[in-house]
Amino acid sequence: MTAPTEPAAVPAFGFRLIATDGMARRGEVTTAHGAIRTPAFMPVGTQATVKTMYPEQVRALGADILLGNTYHLMLRPTAERVDRLGGLHRFMNWPHPILTDSGGFQVMSLAKLRKLNEQAVTFQSHIDGSRHVLSPERSLEIQGLLGSDIQMQLDECVALPAERAEIERAMRLSLRWAERSKAAFFGKPGHGLFAIVQGGDDEALRVESARALTAIGFHGYAVGGLAVGEPQDVMLRILSATTPELPADRPRYLMGVGTPDDIVESVGRGIDMFDCVMPTRAGRHGQAFTRRGKVNLRNARHADDPRPIDEESTCPAARDYSRAYLHHLVKAEEALGAMLLTWINLSYYQDLMAGLRAAIEAGRFQDHKAAVKDGWARGDLPAL
Amino acid sequence: MTAPTEPAAVPAFGFRLIATDGMARRGEVTTAHGAIRTPAFMPVGTQATVKTMYPEQVRALGADILLGNTYHLMLRPTAERVDRLGGLHRFMNWPHPILTDSGGFQVMSLAKLRKLNEQAVTFQSHIDGSRHVLSPERSLEIQGLLGSDIQMQLDECVALPAERAEIERAMRLSLRWAERSKAAFFGKPGHGLFAIVQGGDDEALRVESARALTAIGFHGYAVGGLAVGEPQDVMLRILSATTPELPADRPRYLMGVGTPDDIVESVGRGIDMFDCVMPTRAGRHGQAFTRRGKVNLRNARHADDPRPIDEESTCPAARDYSRAYLHHLVKAEEALGAMLLTWINLSYYQDLMAGLRAAIEAGRFQDHKAAVKDGWARGDLPAL
Repeated sequence: MTAPTEPAAVPAFGFRLIATDGMARRGEVTTAHGAIRTPAFMPVGTQATVKTMYPEQVRALGADILLGNTYHLMLRPTAERVDRLGGLHRFMNWPHPILTDSGGFQVMSLAKLRKLNEQAVTFQSHIDGSRHVLSPERSLEIQGLLGSDIQMQLDECVALPAERAEIERAMRLSLRWAERSKAAFFGKPGHGLFAIVQGGDDEALRVESARALTAIGFHGYAVGGLAVGEPQDVMLRILSATTPELPADRPRYLMGVGTPDDIVESVGRGIDMFDCVMPTRAGRHGQAFTRRGKVNLRNARHADDPRPIDEESTCPAARDYSRAYLHHLVKAEEALGAMLLTWINLSYYQDLMAGLRAAIEAGRFQDHKAAVKDGWARGDLPAL
Repeated sequence: MTAPTEPAAVPAFGFRLIATDGMARRGEVTTAHGAIRTPAFMPVGTQATVKTMYPEQVRALGADILLGNTYHLMLRPTAERVDRLGGLHRFMNWPHPILTDSGGFQVMSLAKLRKLNEQAVTFQSHIDGSRHVLSPERSLEIQGLLGSDIQMQLDECVALPAERAEIERAMRLSLRWAERSKAAFFGKPGHGLFAIVQGGDDEALRVESARALTAIGFHGYAVGGLAVGEPQDVMLRILSATTPELPADRPRYLMGVGTPDDIVESVGRGIDMFDCVMPTRAGRHGQAFTRRGKVNLRNARHADDPRPIDEESTCPAARDYSRAYLHHLVKAEEALGAMLLTWINLSYYQDLMAGLRAAIEAGRFQDHKAAVKDGWARGDLPAL
């Protein structure tokens, strides 16, 4: 028996601004499981796995943090089971930072017979029909059991377009739930709680939400309820109105966004963190993100093309396999097709973020943005 | 322009016997794309991919050679396309030896409206219903276009049990096709042609087939038409009667076999090469092969089990992930479950072969076989 010792020192949750270039920010979030270089893209690990990827592979691409979905994990394998098994990091063999959402968004998009009131949202599992109650307090209890480094308040997200009264009601409910979340958050060292700005496409409501949340005080602030059906210019207008209202010394997270262009534009409006299923989902549907834009490998023009997706990519999957082979794998519905394309896409997203970080540090964000967009605009290689 | 030069030296196709222990043989096959240590297990890359595995990963497990399926590849992406793209090795990013089957077996099990006569077998594609003709000559033409190092004669394989007359008819047809195959084989340096012994469960027919094929002369000899429904003891009885009739200085390949126990017993009867979909297919169905026997990860007893599949395995997937996590991935139908279990299974099979090779070289095949079987018999870890 050894004598009881002090727990190993865990860094406090924090955010450090390293450089700014216009509104664009280069920073670093510190958490119990390590640092997150921002602007950061978080691959989505819905069911405790980034689909078709080994965790070491995701890490090697430069991902500092993954996102886990509370809704999926609370239903299967359940938060209590993950806790008994030592937490989500150990469970999925990812010893680096993890952010969990509150579960609210998926309850609204996936669950059956959902009913929302002031107290909580009740719903039936899409897997087995079992009944569940998700309150702001229960969401944080679940996220605490999962052990995520960044935990999100439960909010209500309204699909756009929507009536102003409905948007306002949901925003005010989300504010009250933010207060309850702060009270319920069990602040283990190195773990942070983020609030979520709501207010739909109404700038005044967004400003009100941002100010009220800032007054309550959180470790970070997310912008929710965007990329839910509105055009990109609406999203960017809302971001331009919202981020100036958020404290400069806290990280800002744009939830569920987005395309490479969405990300570049949002970084230019002061966003630090992103998550999106786009690179992983596109990989399973035969699509590759490249510096020349999106390439659909299902297209017959690739069937005899011996060229790789991008011989200059940092990703072996983009260099070592021909378009013809990828086309074959996609057509034959072989798992390796999704594995290679997801790898290529996550690599592209991580390289995009690394490029943005370097550009902000160097004070050449605008030039870099123009060059990246120019690459997309030139388009893919002409067919052979 | 450089002056025309001699092609780079390609090793001749050959087989070298390194050691024997009873009937068990330790050898090495040399091919245009490298050496194959025998006894060897060939992972199956049906559609130009070993399902759910990166080729580098398969190689790192110790696989010297893969099997490709002529039937699948001739239909999609077609042999002519693979040839235009530089051959199957380049197409699938596997610069090591490849064996292709003749296509006959899958025509009989997968194709529609098949009709066999002395000349060839005609059939309709299971993918698009298109009509195709596969003759001994066309099969070798296809295999030549694919560029495989080891090519197989077209034969007719009869499912067991079957009437002796039917078995004999198919065996004699296969013999005539073997002669035509030898005449049609375009012997590029380092590429070999294997004949296939048929004769069902009739020892006299097997002996006749083996002697007649040996008289014609091939680079290697396969035993076909086993593991097609008969009990293991029938298969082993046939092997015991067949392998002594085959020339000692040529490799022997038991097609489509099998379980780890089938492999160990067959090595003890003088077989050098094996292929089977079992480790890859089992991996996609939630099953792991281990030194303690087969483990079904779908079983609820693993749901809370934090232990790995096998902490002593050489495969990271067997050590770094809990049974609870693998159970979760299998239940949630996540690709990573199939990826990790296939990896574990191919690793187990390759380690099994490495162990057999070392035991034969050391003259302790029987002791090793007993120890391996003892491990399987002890069974999996008791539930927690």
